[in-house]
Amino acid sequence: MSRIYNFSAGPSMLPESVLKRAAEEMLDYNNSGQSVMEMSHRSKTYEQIITSCESLLRELLQIPDNYKVLFLQGGASSQFAMIPMNLMKNHKIDLVLTGQWAKKAHAEAKKYGEVNVVASSADKTFSYIPQLDPASFSKDADYFYICLNNTIYGTHYHTLPDTGNVPLIADVSSCILSEPMDISKFGLIFAGAQKNMGPAGLTVVIVREDLIGEVAPTVPTMFSYQIHADNQSMYNTPPTYAIYICKLVLEWLKNDIGGLENMHQINQKKAAILYDFLDSSKLFQATVEPASRSLMNVPFITGNEELDKKFIAQSIEHGFANLKGHRSVGGMRASIYNAMPIEGVEALVSFMKEFEKANS
Amino acid sequence: MSRIYNFSAGPSMLPESVLKRAAEEMLDYNNSGQSVMEMSHRSKTYEQIITSCESLLRELLQIPDNYKVLFLQGGASSQFAMIPMNLMKNHKIDLVLTGQWAKKAHAEAKKYGEVNVVASSADKTFSYIPQLDPASFSKDADYFYICLNNTIYGTHYHTLPDTGNVPLIADVSSCILSEPMDISKFGLIFAGAQKNMGPAGLTVVIVREDLIGEVAPTVPTMFSYQIHADNQSMYNTPPTYAIYICKLVLEWLKNDIGGLENMHQINQKKAAILYDFLDSSKLFQATVEPASRSLMNVPFITGNEELDKKFIAQSIEHGFANLKGHRSVGGMRASIYNAMPIEGVEALVSFMKEFEKANS
Repeated sequence: MSRIYNFSAGPSMLPESVLKRAAEEMLDYNNSGQSVMEMSHRSKTYEQIITSCESLLRELLQIPDNYKVLFLQGGASSQFAMIPMNLMKNHKIDLVLTGQWAKKAHAEAKKYGEVNVVASSADKTFSYIPQLDPASFSKDADYFYICLNNTIYGTHYHTLPDTGNVPLIADVSSCILSEPMDISKFGLIFAGAQKNMGPAGLTVVIVREDLIGEVAPTVPTMFSYQIHADNQSMYNTPPTYAIYICKLVLEWLKNDIGGLENMHQINQKKAAILYDFLDSSKLFQATVEPASRSLMNVPFITGNEELDKKFIAQSIEHGFANLKGHRSVGGMRASIYNAMPIEGVEALVSFMKEFEKANS
Repeated sequence: MSRIYNFSAGPSMLPESVLKRAAEEMLDYNNSGQSVMEMSHRSKTYEQIITSCESLLRELLQIPDNYKVLFLQGGASSQFAMIPMNLMKNHKIDLVLTGQWAKKAHAEAKKYGEVNVVASSADKTFSYIPQLDPASFSKDADYFYICLNNTIYGTHYHTLPDTGNVPLIADVSSCILSEPMDISKFGLIFAGAQKNMGPAGLTVVIVREDLIGEVAPTVPTMFSYQIHADNQSMYNTPPTYAIYICKLVLEWLKNDIGGLENMHQINQKKAAILYDFLDSSKLFQATVEPASRSLMNVPFITGNEELDKKFIAQSIEHGFANLKGHRSVGGMRASIYNAMPIEGVEALVSFMKEFEKANS
């Protein structure tokens, strides 16, 4: 079968050139006589792979020197515990509730201290990013936690809260590398790789080095940022193959796309094609208010559940995968991460136009 | 370059047929139009992969129905904390010290309770498995912990301690699937995938279901066995691609090798070729006493550090990778996991014979 357009929220599409390269190198990486999967993580050949992956990430995101880059395992769900276990000193944090992932971070952080919910968009099914009033922020919070891009609901912060001296921490799983970002505005950001970076099973953490240090004696060694930082992400065997694929994706971003400014322009173009159609359609509509829309995740509905189902069924027949909305919200959602080509979004909109014509 | 014989302790060789299949399916798995890396873990296609992986593992290891199979992340190092965090009720365990990994498990378990070291082989650089006296076992221990195969030192338990009603827990990272094992003798076993199962980044836990349940409120949700068991290893996104490669390895074990009895015979044959030569050589010698020898990891020395270095340097030139012993013990070590073909061991012994002739 030919390659399909996969609108999955994650794991999701990877650049075809990355997959081709991975296939070519599967039995023999760079004349080593081995697959990357088979390599000792302590070998010189592998060391070059992980070092180059970190350098590329530092270059693309312009990560300041006083930030550590950690390649970890366990997904965002592990970070929900690891962050409070490492960074809660006063046992008090601020948090904005913008969806299911912020909720999970909230529930986990509450095990380790007080969580002050500064604002929430739960009143309108998380369809917007709430206005934040700095007067409501806790001056003595250990950190201020947000989910920068909300995968399920399709919302995105277009301005960051000004948290003063309180470190801002963000889950950037579904928007990292989609546009340039000023890392110096954050104390820590983290992302599961399976949307814009590579395969599931790799989590990238970027953390200001002064924020990490000793942890309580009951914290698992594997949950200490300091341990991973001191060992250059090699305290134990890292997810070596996932890091290699991440390196290939970063090379694609740098060499084929030309960096994050270019990636941002392409992502804006792709999102505009879809949002412009949704805003002009008589059948379909976007669920998120314009000021809070994500470039990566675009939820939409017809307003009629039967018609939604019909649309999803027909979309699959036409070679579009995973357009069904998250089970907690229904409707449809098109996740259009970095690797989704513009042709995929154009093809989707053409199909939506046909469907609209046939069903109105 | 042609494929080399890779004697790495892990990550290590994979069957060539598995790598070929992975390369072929990289851009389009089973007519899905997607790479396995790109698939939603909630899709039907992926569900079949993870379900089939579990079924094959259950079949090959004859896992009883009252055991859960969990596909996790974080390596053995995460299990060192996860086991006590889930299974310590009386906060007291027994443990046998047979090397660095048992030591690490010991250090981590001590954070959560009392650890009674029943026996140790530290007196002779962990070159043997100590005799165990059941009279020294704690009757009220939560569990009895061993490292069944010691990767660094090349030792293996050939009889299991009889721990009565106290659950036996074993790190089987470097010997799982190398021979049949009676799972019902254990409360829990675990293994990092990167030796006999697949790529790094996947950890398999097999646990008797009555042993798991609620954990203390401060335990990270991701460290609860019950959470992963209740969600069929899908509480969050699992390491999807690593699980797929593991499935291919299990298919190879079942269909190409013919199961674990056959694998065991092949492994015995491979190990015998190496040990027989070591025991007859005037230059080389095995470091482990015969009764404690591992089929998977074979350390050896010449007794002369300069000669060891010369041997390692020449072995690389002859296309043998990673024969250098672990940095903590020196000398040489040949890890000959399931995927190492018999020809690889024969070629190594031929080379050792030549080296012996040239250096005596």
